[in-house]
Amino acid sequence: MESKVTPWEVKGNIDYDKLIKEFGVSAIDDKILQRIKKHTKELHPFLRRKIFFAHRDLNFILDQYEKGNKFFLYTGRAPSGPVHIGHLVPWLFTKWLQDKFDVELYFQFPDEEKYLFKDNLGWEDSQKYLQENMLDVIALGFDPKKTKFIIDTQHANLLYPEAIKVAKRITFSTVKAAFGMSNETNIGSIFYTAMQAVPAFLPSVLKKKEIPCLIPHAIDQDPHFRVSRDVIPKLGHYKPASIQCRFLPGLRGLEEDGKMSSSEAATAIYTTDDAKTIKNKINKHAFSGGKDTVEEHRKLGGNPEIDVSYQWLMFFEEDDKKLEKIYKEYTSGKLLSGELKALLIEKLTAFLLEHQKKRKDAAKNISKFIL
Amino acid sequence: MESKVTPWEVKGNIDYDKLIKEFGVSAIDDKILQRIKKHTKELHPFLRRKIFFAHRDLNFILDQYEKGNKFFLYTGRAPSGPVHIGHLVPWLFTKWLQDKFDVELYFQFPDEEKYLFKDNLGWEDSQKYLQENMLDVIALGFDPKKTKFIIDTQHANLLYPEAIKVAKRITFSTVKAAFGMSNETNIGSIFYTAMQAVPAFLPSVLKKKEIPCLIPHAIDQDPHFRVSRDVIPKLGHYKPASIQCRFLPGLRGLEEDGKMSSSEAATAIYTTDDAKTIKNKINKHAFSGGKDTVEEHRKLGGNPEIDVSYQWLMFFEEDDKKLEKIYKEYTSGKLLSGELKALLIEKLTAFLLEHQKKRKDAAKNISKFIL
Repeated sequence: MESKVTPWEVKGNIDYDKLIKEFGVSAIDDKILQRIKKHTKELHPFLRRKIFFAHRDLNFILDQYEKGNKFFLYTGRAPSGPVHIGHLVPWLFTKWLQDKFDVELYFQFPDEEKYLFKDNLGWEDSQKYLQENMLDVIALGFDPKKTKFIIDTQHANLLYPEAIKVAKRITFSTVKAAFGMSNETNIGSIFYTAMQAVPAFLPSVLKKKEIPCLIPHAIDQDPHFRVSRDVIPKLGHYKPASIQCRFLPGLRGLEEDGKMSSSEAATAIYTTDDAKTIKNKINKHAFSGGKDTVEEHRKLGGNPEIDVSYQWLMFFEEDDKKLEKIYKEYTSGKLLSGELKALLIEKLTAFLLEHQKKRKDAAKNISKFIL
Repeated sequence: MESKVTPWEVKGNIDYDKLIKEFGVSAIDDKILQRIKKHTKELHPFLRRKIFFAHRDLNFILDQYEKGNKFFLYTGRAPSGPVHIGHLVPWLFTKWLQDKFDVELYFQFPDEEKYLFKDNLGWEDSQKYLQENMLDVIALGFDPKKTKFIIDTQHANLLYPEAIKVAKRITFSTVKAAFGMSNETNIGSIFYTAMQAVPAFLPSVLKKKEIPCLIPHAIDQDPHFRVSRDVIPKLGHYKPASIQCRFLPGLRGLEEDGKMSSSEAATAIYTTDDAKTIKNKINKHAFSGGKDTVEEHRKLGGNPEIDVSYQWLMFFEEDDKKLEKIYKEYTSGKLLSGELKALLIEKLTAFLLEHQKKRKDAAKNISKFIL
């Protein structure tokens, strides 16, 4: 399947090295990892494993940080369905950055985005998912003193007056090229990127002093920031920096589902799936890199590069040694596909049951997070 | 000069009969005037003189009114410069409608519109004119108990969540055709018409009951409502009705300035012009329909159809008998151009000095009007 990566559609088996060139981002290399480590002491597994694989202007952020000028973090979630474990990836990393650098986070919920882009998503649905999705973010343990939720339709008084300043400097030609829009695109969708630009400088406006911005996000959102990075300095603010992750693949594997999709329940694990559902989905659907028979597998070993269970463990098994052991035993044939799946099920179930406990608790704390 | 009428550009000598056909509005005829008069007892000079010359669905508004279902009024002003006497025309009529029908008025100040459409209008200018322009509206005597000002960037929390519902249903093709936009148009301008649509149904949203809407406006704004009238019923609201006026011509006359323009100081009388300035502008610039010499004028008479002073008196001299007398004496040659100008100067100066007094008083009342 030919791959495609836009903010509204990701399909196929994605070549991330090619994306680096196409999008014009910089690869995360050992040099920058060492520079980060100077401040964080240890590196998050998403960095060690190049799950966060690219960036824009991260050196500028570190320059400023080293001069005592702290940055703020900005990321977000467009409500359109239940949260799956793939969504958590950039947020988990954002939480780590918040803790390690002790910085503020502005978390945008653009509750109009998917409503505008999806014909079949009604306004009430969008608002229902907004409430649900906030619980998942809170459950990850963000510090409410340092974390502000921005909800586009509830904070339009703050966002719209700044969005028009961005919008004045972006033509239809530009969004047409960046997002593949056409004459049949609705005018809300055309305008939307201006609303996504605002949180990258809103704290500077609110605090009346310029604060650098670092945006951790999945690579598909890069076109928004590619456009807004050209505009934001014209408004007198720092050009926002960003750090990009690749996608958690869907259950059917990299070839079919380069990115997990909410809209296909059989390929995604939702944060609210119970233990039985997690087990069933993985056992039934997780694409295996194992051989067809036990004999063959013992002899030739499995292929972790295409095995969804192994790929997911790269995201969720934090212990490098354990992961290495799994790799060796799987490739050598000692570990069978079913056994590998069992390891993933155990890991993911423990993580999600804990998440669900915190998620239940989160409802009463929503108001603490809203800007 | 070829004429052109869009919300952002009006030029040339406008053929209003042709506009009725082009825009697809209905002419104000004697039948509908009689129907209005049943309720208002008398007709405003702007109706008697067909200055308000066209409408959409005014019969629906009167049907509803007669059933006891009152409408609300919606009009507006996009701040971009000082208010001139041409701007007052639809507002004076709106005030009359408010008084006669005892209805609420929602007055929109889209403080982003001209900022988005004019390259050379900065944000601070737009905000300065917003404050200035509100004074002119208040000075006309609107009842603060029945009049609500909506300022787009200050009421974005109310407007934006509704604007996206409108925007989802309007494509770029539609705005391209309606407003003559191109690929080089900025995305804020493309979105803007959705913000102008909202006040036409916002009271129904706020009051949770459907209220018919009547929009008095100058004919150049019709493309906005032509587009939004298709969309608003899809959101479950009444299709807004409208009533359109022609423009007060600029000082250089109908041929040159079919519509008075703020940006050309020598062709406009501002509401803040002092008595001396009014006198000088009219004496110096007002295009005359009189003859070249007094002798010729006495013999052949002047032409009121092209005479700016007479045209303006049609807007500002409420007394039909006085106006008729002026018409007769001017066409017969009894009244000289200078004398006609003097009559206009007297009328307009009295009106504006009174306006300026009220305008001074208005500053302390702004907050009473803000929604």
